Amino acid sequence: MRRIYLDYNATTPVLATTLAEMEPFFVRHFGNPSSEHVLGRAAAEAIEDAREHVAMMLGAMSGEIVFTSGGTESNNFAIKGLFLRPDQKKRHFVTTRIEHPAISEPARFLKRMGVDVTLVGCDARGVVDPEAVRDAIRDDTALVSVMHANNEVGAIQPIREIATICRQRGVLVHTDAAQSVGKIPTDVGELGVDLLSIAGHKLYAPKGVGALYVRDGVVLEPLLHGAGHEHGLRAGTEATPSIVGLGSAARLATRELDANRERIAKLRNQLWEQLSAQVDALQWNGQSDNLLPNTLSVNFPRVAARDILARIPELCVSTGAACHSGSTKPSATLTAMGIDEATARGTIRLSLGWLTTPDEIEHAADLLAEAWFQLKA
Amino acid sequence: MRRIYLDYNATTPVLATTLAEMEPFFVRHFGNPSSEHVLGRAAAEAIEDAREHVAMMLGAMSGEIVFTSGGTESNNFAIKGLFLRPDQKKRHFVTTRIEHPAISEPARFLKRMGVDVTLVGCDARGVVDPEAVRDAIRDDTALVSVMHANNEVGAIQPIREIATICRQRGVLVHTDAAQSVGKIPTDVGELGVDLLSIAGHKLYAPKGVGALYVRDGVVLEPLLHGAGHEHGLRAGTEATPSIVGLGSAARLATRELDANRERIAKLRNQLWEQLSAQVDALQWNGQSDNLLPNTLSVNFPRVAARDILARIPELCVSTGAACHSGSTKPSATLTAMGIDEATARGTIRLSLGWLTTPDEIEHAADLLAEAWFQLKA
Repeated sequence: MRRIYLDYNATTPVLATTLAEMEPFFVRHFGNPSSEHVLGRAAAEAIEDAREHVAMMLGAMSGEIVFTSGGTESNNFAIKGLFLRPDQKKRHFVTTRIEHPAISEPARFLKRMGVDVTLVGCDARGVVDPEAVRDAIRDDTALVSVMHANNEVGAIQPIREIATICRQRGVLVHTDAAQSVGKIPTDVGELGVDLLSIAGHKLYAPKGVGALYVRDGVVLEPLLHGAGHEHGLRAGTEATPSIVGLGSAARLATRELDANRERIAKLRNQLWEQLSAQVDALQWNGQSDNLLPNTLSVNFPRVAARDILARIPELCVSTGAACHSGSTKPSATLTAMGIDEATARGTIRLSLGWLTTPDEIEHAADLLAEAWFQLKA
Repeated sequence: MRRIYLDYNATTPVLATTLAEMEPFFVRHFGNPSSEHVLGRAAAEAIEDAREHVAMMLGAMSGEIVFTSGGTESNNFAIKGLFLRPDQKKRHFVTTRIEHPAISEPARFLKRMGVDVTLVGCDARGVVDPEAVRDAIRDDTALVSVMHANNEVGAIQPIREIATICRQRGVLVHTDAAQSVGKIPTDVGELGVDLLSIAGHKLYAPKGVGALYVRDGVVLEPLLHGAGHEHGLRAGTEATPSIVGLGSAARLATRELDANRERIAKLRNQLWEQLSAQVDALQWNGQSDNLLPNTLSVNFPRVAARDILARIPELCVSTGAACHSGSTKPSATLTAMGIDEATARGTIRLSLGWLTTPDEIEHAADLLAEAWFQLKA
């Protein structure tokens, strides 16, 4: 059974070239990067190289990149790090209804700690209106956090416009770019953000590593307190091999962004055409010309997504965001877009990646259409 | 130049056999463990296997093991997780002057959040007196945290006695076992602790992974909020390869503990004998019959440790705990033991590991003695 993986928004494989770059740091160059001897210094240098590559991918200075254990930690650090600052007087946080739980759950925690939280909605395409953010901002707003691109439907958010509004009001802006880095440009200067999270494993780097961009001058309370790693911002012995992997993936992403983007968008559109030609009344959630090039969220009419996928175990895709699986509630994003529960039950998210081939697309479309056809009968 | 690594307390290499077990999870079995498709399930199963191995090493149930990004996160999670619980009424924390910064810095943070912190000292051998802990406990004490074994001098702490006292007073006990797992028995039942931290990279697992043992029934507020990974205790996509590596290392540690312990203690004692025979008035910090088998902290008289090591770059050892390097102050542990600044400047920590050979020990002793001899002249 040939497996077809179209779940790149859930996670990506590490490429052989990246793994090869990581390997020496497990066994040979294994020194503690804080050690002053030759083995320590070799590790510390590799980490600084990786930092340069991540900074370059984001158009940042390398001193603005803090390595973390992943996207969830980056998001927790950005938000809690700002509100738990001892000198933080402003106690209002603005975010949206379509964020990943790694934003919405820290927000719930802060609420319990006395922070006031306002949630902004989205339109039927899954896009947040900058004017709604403007309306939500108050004099005591410390931070606005809006994801760069939605993990479920791929809607790219107007971060630049939102950041401009925030700047006018003296409010800091964070964006969760876990789903956008490597897929579309994510230049922090262009976006105008103060904080930006990335997750290695969405970018062909290993699981267990990520980064937070912290604009020079922005002060955060650490989330992990301890020895003074990462300029005192994030304690814990640096995960050298994983960080080297993130650097490698960032270098690849920067170099191949344009080529990958175009090729993948073409395949995604081909998948939609082939699928919609076979499945009557198939709906594309959030279809627009401002989507991630790799994401296709579709609703199969009258049939549950789970039943379709049970018939084609060789197809690895998602019925919702992978992190939420096990849950049977329609996702927060689909709900915020106004999609009702019955429709959401037919939703399948197909997300393409660097390794996706035209053959896979063709085969996946046929498998899905056939399973749907059998079930609706 | 043949390199000699005697800095295993700073970090350890990943063994080839462990790396081989990890590798398939980077490239082939790379699925998101939360995904319901075949690639996700394979990853989830590997994680549960690893959890069993870690649990077995600690004499715990696998449901009591929470994977983290490392020892620092485990420590932060244990301490802040208890004091930031919404229902936490008790606001007093007892810990010691010889803890790693991954304990002392979270303690400082909690102090700022209104938690009262009492620091207990140690004797000249670096050992904490259980009676001093008893005296420090108050009616509003929620937690006592005492490291299992000291990273700098190797002193093993009377955790069982401390835990008994705490239990009598209804106080929870945490121990940072980063330095003891794999070196001496660390059975949570024997120790009687409620929470226990481990750091993968001190145990021949990769950097960037660790675990917290949370006794069944102990409730913690997550440190990383987000999707419901790790039974809702620690959000963030699981770092499958690193977790598999930790499981592999835990299995090796459990199997080889007794053999390694004896062999390494013999080499350590041989190193002391050879060194002290050549270096007049060499002092062994905290010498006792209750030390980690692999650790030898010595003071070279009248010469700075840095100057000695500058002459023998092939020798990878530490002048203090690696995480603190860059700092020139004598370490908190040496200070608490009553060692003055001038003496502490001559301190070198030699820490042996699974790969240490008799040849390396002999050669290291000669190199150190020779460098000291030249410098004191």
